[in-house]
Amino acid sequence: MNDYRPNSFDADIGELRGLIAQMGGLAERAIAGAVEALQRHDLVAAERIVAEDKKIDVLEKQVEHLAVRIIAQRAPVDGDLREVVAALKIAGVVERIGDYAKNIAKRVPAIDGHREIEPLSVLPAMARLAAEMVHDVLDAFAARDAEAAIGVCERDRAVDDYYNSLFRVLVTHMMENPRTIGQVAHLLFVAKHLERVGDHATNVAEMVYYAATGTHMAERDRGALVTN
Amino acid sequence: MNDYRPNSFDADIGELRGLIAQMGGLAERAIAGAVEALQRHDLVAAERIVAEDKKIDVLEKQVEHLAVRIIAQRAPVDGDLREVVAALKIAGVVERIGDYAKNIAKRVPAIDGHREIEPLSVLPAMARLAAEMVHDVLDAFAARDAEAAIGVCERDRAVDDYYNSLFRVLVTHMMENPRTIGQVAHLLFVAKHLERVGDHATNVAEMVYYAATGTHMAERDRGALVTN
Repeated sequence: MNDYRPNSFDADIGELRGLIAQMGGLAERAIAGAVEALQRHDLVAAERIVAEDKKIDVLEKQVEHLAVRIIAQRAPVDGDLREVVAALKIAGVVERIGDYAKNIAKRVPAIDGHREIEPLSVLPAMARLAAEMVHDVLDAFAARDAEAAIGVCERDRAVDDYYNSLFRVLVTHMMENPRTIGQVAHLLFVAKHLERVGDHATNVAEMVYYAATGTHMAERDRGALVTN
Repeated sequence: MNDYRPNSFDADIGELRGLIAQMGGLAERAIAGAVEALQRHDLVAAERIVAEDKKIDVLEKQVEHLAVRIIAQRAPVDGDLREVVAALKIAGVVERIGDYAKNIAKRVPAIDGHREIEPLSVLPAMARLAAEMVHDVLDAFAARDAEAAIGVCERDRAVDDYYNSLFRVLVTHMMENPRTIGQVAHLLFVAKHLERVGDHATNVAEMVYYAATGTHMAERDRGALVTN
């Protein structure tokens, strides 16, 4: 009997992690795909990305139901409870990351002057960086790796730098090419969305850190003990 | 003995609702205040709004700790469990609404040509509408009022219409006044943030509906029974 509950809990948490890994894989591909579609003005790919976002939403609901069932049936405590709560919150954040990708894909039809807008060429590198943060932070969650989570946070500055430089480049481009303003305004949002994906990956990293250690990452520098 | 647990649960859930009402009040005031500060170019008010966002963050952590303690100690089921989970998720959304207000406040210093940018005059009405949605959806949560939650969702279209019309007005303004492009680009984000506040209030409304009825709002039109 003693072995029953822990094993079942492990199976449940394994299922929970599997669902979140699936969500993360979809979100990561959606970000990269949306920015590629933007650059190639690929309306078919853009539509597919918008449609596939529904899969992420369905997975989020599955995570929520499973997490609530685990809490209700298994009454986990301490680290186990933190992990289930983290899974619930992380699923919500990954769903929002998927929404950003969908939002970028929805802007593809509006950018038909893609060959004239040079700043577009910077976006794929920024998208790759943001998508990698999402990938790595979910690996950190799967491995309960607090150090890896810190590493993800540290990369957010690079995404912010991309954004700040792009903002200036896009504003300059608008001033010099007033007839592209409508299209470039959409690109301001695309750049902002990618910056927000980086922020969300950072938030997830903080959740992973808390789930793994029981202390908040912000307390780390104030000399709090890391207890795992 | 039989009376002990329900009474304690009621006290806990009352505390949870009180914390969320506090968060909502702060977020609502921050949105209205940030847009006012923008219009008056009031740097002192803007700084105060940025600083006060920390209070919302602290309250969110309190909600999280309390919700996890309730689940762990009281093992609520069915409607009670749905309500605790909803509180946890709603706190996360209200925290993000606070972040949008903070982000708007941070843009105040960049808009020093506020007297020349006529579209600015539309923002307070849009901010009021979005802040009211936040107010009303948290009232609906406090009252477990599924019908009121539906009413909030229905108002999101008005916020979207404001946004779509503002986007066009701002792009036209940029074309006609190229030297204001840098400032007006910030206003595009402000308008987008307010539109997102409306979206988030709608998401909260869906959570309130689910917590109160046990069915998802999207299932309502497909003839699902509302069970309260």
